[in-house]
Amino acid sequence: MTATPQGVLMPATVEKIREKARLLRIHSMRATTAAGSGHPTSCLSAAELVAGTFFHAMKFDAANPNSTAGDRFVLSKGHAAPVLYAALAEAGVFPVSRLMTLRQFSSELEGHPTPLIPGVDAATGSLGQGLSVGAGLALGARIERSRARIYVLLGDGELAEGNVWEAAAFAAHYQLDNLTAIADINGLGQSERTMYRHDTEVYRRKFEAQGWQAEVIDGHDLAAVLGALDRASSTTGRPQAIVARTEKGHGISFLADREGWHGKALSKEELEKALAEIGPVPEIPKDDGRSYVRKSLPVPPEFPAPAAPDYKPGQSVATREAYGTALRKLAAVNPKIVALDGDVKNSTFADVLQKAYPDRLFQGYIAEQNIVSAGVGLAAQGQVPFIATFACFFSRAYDQVRMAAISRSNINLCGSHCGVSIGEDGPSQMGLEDLAMFRAIPGATVFYPSDAVAAERLTETAARLPGICYLRTSRPKLPVLYASDEKFPVPGFKVLRQSSGDRAIVVAAGVTVYEALKAYEQLKAKGIPIRVIDLYCLKPIDATALGQHVAAGGGRLVSVEDHYPEGGLGEAVLGALTTGGIALGGVRRLAVTGVPHSGKPDELLDAFGISARHIVGAVEQLG
Amino acid sequence: MTATPQGVLMPATVEKIREKARLLRIHSMRATTAAGSGHPTSCLSAAELVAGTFFHAMKFDAANPNSTAGDRFVLSKGHAAPVLYAALAEAGVFPVSRLMTLRQFSSELEGHPTPLIPGVDAATGSLGQGLSVGAGLALGARIERSRARIYVLLGDGELAEGNVWEAAAFAAHYQLDNLTAIADINGLGQSERTMYRHDTEVYRRKFEAQGWQAEVIDGHDLAAVLGALDRASSTTGRPQAIVARTEKGHGISFLADREGWHGKALSKEELEKALAEIGPVPEIPKDDGRSYVRKSLPVPPEFPAPAAPDYKPGQSVATREAYGTALRKLAAVNPKIVALDGDVKNSTFADVLQKAYPDRLFQGYIAEQNIVSAGVGLAAQGQVPFIATFACFFSRAYDQVRMAAISRSNINLCGSHCGVSIGEDGPSQMGLEDLAMFRAIPGATVFYPSDAVAAERLTETAARLPGICYLRTSRPKLPVLYASDEKFPVPGFKVLRQSSGDRAIVVAAGVTVYEALKAYEQLKAKGIPIRVIDLYCLKPIDATALGQHVAAGGGRLVSVEDHYPEGGLGEAVLGALTTGGIALGGVRRLAVTGVPHSGKPDELLDAFGISARHIVGAVEQLG
Repeated sequence: MTATPQGVLMPATVEKIREKARLLRIHSMRATTAAGSGHPTSCLSAAELVAGTFFHAMKFDAANPNSTAGDRFVLSKGHAAPVLYAALAEAGVFPVSRLMTLRQFSSELEGHPTPLIPGVDAATGSLGQGLSVGAGLALGARIERSRARIYVLLGDGELAEGNVWEAAAFAAHYQLDNLTAIADINGLGQSERTMYRHDTEVYRRKFEAQGWQAEVIDGHDLAAVLGALDRASSTTGRPQAIVARTEKGHGISFLADREGWHGKALSKEELEKALAEIGPVPEIPKDDGRSYVRKSLPVPPEFPAPAAPDYKPGQSVATREAYGTALRKLAAVNPKIVALDGDVKNSTFADVLQKAYPDRLFQGYIAEQNIVSAGVGLAAQGQVPFIATFACFFSRAYDQVRMAAISRSNINLCGSHCGVSIGEDGPSQMGLEDLAMFRAIPGATVFYPSDAVAAERLTETAARLPGICYLRTSRPKLPVLYASDEKFPVPGFKVLRQSSGDRAIVVAAGVTVYEALKAYEQLKAKGIPIRVIDLYCLKPIDATALGQHVAAGGGRLVSVEDHYPEGGLGEAVLGALTTGGIALGGVRRLAVTGVPHSGKPDELLDAFGISARHIVGAVEQLG
Repeated sequence: MTATPQGVLMPATVEKIREKARLLRIHSMRATTAAGSGHPTSCLSAAELVAGTFFHAMKFDAANPNSTAGDRFVLSKGHAAPVLYAALAEAGVFPVSRLMTLRQFSSELEGHPTPLIPGVDAATGSLGQGLSVGAGLALGARIERSRARIYVLLGDGELAEGNVWEAAAFAAHYQLDNLTAIADINGLGQSERTMYRHDTEVYRRKFEAQGWQAEVIDGHDLAAVLGALDRASSTTGRPQAIVARTEKGHGISFLADREGWHGKALSKEELEKALAEIGPVPEIPKDDGRSYVRKSLPVPPEFPAPAAPDYKPGQSVATREAYGTALRKLAAVNPKIVALDGDVKNSTFADVLQKAYPDRLFQGYIAEQNIVSAGVGLAAQGQVPFIATFACFFSRAYDQVRMAAISRSNINLCGSHCGVSIGEDGPSQMGLEDLAMFRAIPGATVFYPSDAVAAERLTETAARLPGICYLRTSRPKLPVLYASDEKFPVPGFKVLRQSSGDRAIVVAAGVTVYEALKAYEQLKAKGIPIRVIDLYCLKPIDATALGQHVAAGGGRLVSVEDHYPEGGLGEAVLGALTTGGIALGGVRRLAVTGVPHSGKPDELLDAFGISARHIVGAVEQLG
């Protein structure tokens, strides 16, 4: 599978790879026809590109295809999954017979790739994210001093996605010469021809404008493909793009470059006709039903306890600042901690890490999509990424977070500047939907610390937990509430005020905890005792324990959050309690309704209904 | 404010504009110092660019600055708001005295621009969206046969955002020669120098690679600025980029090109020192406190009733298909209807509109961020945009939707292929968080039709309603439930089954309505009557009316949704009912938990716990 030292390929080798390309075509068509759906023509355009990459360029252990030591392949155009599965099978990762289980509920071979499949590092299928994942893998390989190379196959349709060009700029900036993008320019999108059709020069110019090495080839000329892959692997100092002119449906007369064939499996008759055109078809043995679901999905590495929080009670510290301190302490005990920044590190305090460990922070500039998906790539190389920006700007990368969850990726995200409490910068900078976003990510853990001790402890917990962890931090400096040795279990909450005669329970988090404490004092002065809960963990919620407190407050519940009413703390609590069968004796949910405005933080908390005054009013209304 | 016919500027004119640039600097620094926060140095780099654009290039009516007849300006680098406000004041849109109210709660001049301010068409401040808005404005001007031009000022930091390059490709594709991008390359980001610092050639190459006319100028050489603006306005066939080398903080010795000054207002002492450097400072009269909040925000135009739905009860039609039919019927009676597609028009059925009215659909290719923000621009020109893609892919553009809400924009979004009911394509293609997303958009209306009649009627309603409307459509063909003359008020729901002895209420929407109807039959056979609700409108919800039905079912509630449990139908119903004070006698929320898998639609509905069988079980558990 390798070239001679001079890079001259033996004809026999080329023939062997050509046969692999032919087999990839056969497998892709057969599997999709058996499934009754799928994207065979998108596989046919890529057959030579994938065969050349897998059977000439790549060096990896088929028994351990997700190793940092080996080359990796990211199928950014995830709808061509069958051609990837065919290549993995032909490479010996799982038996060829398994291909015929494509898209069945019982099979690991889903309609689009997921990391449940050996050899896949990230889920793809939402287009335009694979190059960021590849850049993260390439950066991770460099961190781990692996000489492995990363190959990313992109479709031309997805080159319209801005995320691709964020990734391209990032890869060039970090001089990721271990990264090769292969662009399958078949000129046909889903619903019509692509913007640039077969104008491969446009794509070359776009990659070159980003600082990439780029060349245009005929993607069905196998010698040209192998030559380009060789030139790519010997390029230093910059990533490489192979812009390949191809035909969708190539190799089959009635499919090649035809519109109307996107995402359509061939009928049995069409399949027979197609197979007759491309020579002998191998027997495929019946699948034995054995599952090849990847057993060892990555888990974050264990590490010793970092230095404990060191604050004085009442000291004023913003949770965003404590996040930076926590990162620095974590990095001292865990060499895998890395940070990704979107040019706001002096606001999120990720720069505290960078100042202590300059090589642990990667600057992604103002390109949130790329830093999230690059984080997925880094995690797949065993790193523990912390990605931070303003909470509201993660809405820019929500699709990338969604795909990270489908990727079962271990990434941690910190959203600072949540809510109206940021003040004068106004609504465009206020994260008011981030809790809804991250709660709706399957398997995610959602933290919302109210003080610096909680922020440090929960940052540590995020580094230990598998899956996606979201940490919501606040802009204002607020008094430290907890002792340095306080523990913050998951799930969990803190009861800050309680008595046997509590007339209601107030559930708050972050900045509203302080409003609830003020309300407690005001109500106490009126002879109305309330229970105050700091719900530092919004997902999961310990419904049973919380329900007991609610019951003790007569079922009267006030939730208060610096977030819109939908999908945030209030609904999370309602969902947990009703699932737990708790009888509610009256509910008031205080949250920010309508688009907020610039103003002073305290002015805004009051104007948008989440200040102590409103909590007092809500408790009194509940009677 | 105009050049001679030969394009040669009179020295006096140049001097007048130079004085405007000087005033913009003074106003920007004074206003931010008065506010105690803001981004004066980001204003200083743009002073000549903004002065040249407003006082030389642009032609608009200061009394009506948001008119389609006039030129428009989009401040994509929204943090430079003070320089925009200063230009609007100097142009006579509001008094200069008003500038000193910057960032106050009582002022329309927020930290970042919003369309509450006359002369602003879209909220900016989340970077990298303005060029898409500008492209939409330019396209809208062309549709309305206006000869007006659109100017977009971008910062170099935001040129890292992929959204910018999606917009650039779109604008070139549609040959928007009425669109000029002005890139303020000051080389300094928020937290450090930008990726390319002052390498203006990189930006020129990037714009040229997209097919733009591009030139590099010294952005502080006013004659160069005016010359470039003249050349831009006389360019035909392509959009133009003016790549301007500037200095952040230009004009003030201790600010120019200095790091550490991003987002910092000058102290009073620093301000005095700065003002002393730039010559005579005009007296600013005390503001009279009068509000200049824009009175006439756009509202969708009225139009006659479109052709009614025309289905036979029981006929199998997918709601996504009915959406396409509705668009076609709407376009026949409303000339402002336009559609934006992300190369999935044959899946969302937006192509039904295109087949009937080829010039009403704009192909945005696979670039969801751009089509949403371009929609905001189109709406600001009085069009009624319908933007459709798979529901899950709107997660790609969630920040753009968020900003559209802050923009008070009238855009309609249709997300198809929701939930596990899409089947074999797998989780990457399933919209399972879209209800959480869109519910958390302030002021948004969220529809989820279960049959073709509802889908048509609600599409019409979306075209009439101001603000953001989201319509969730489904992939499977399902029986028509409603008569063609059925009405679907907002808020509202339909009671599909009820009796006086109902033992529980089942609230469903979309595909789960059919599962609930099956469960009704199965439970009826067991002698257990239930009430079945089709909650076609998830936001707003008529809590009082819904609560009466829940009470009639003994307070026993089952919600069932093809969505994750967080932020969707179940939490929406809980939120509405508890706010309404309804006593719940037991709740079961059925939703998709965990990352789903490829498989057959029915298999997945059952495997992920939202089929008829699970509804029956939930009702029985409630006792």
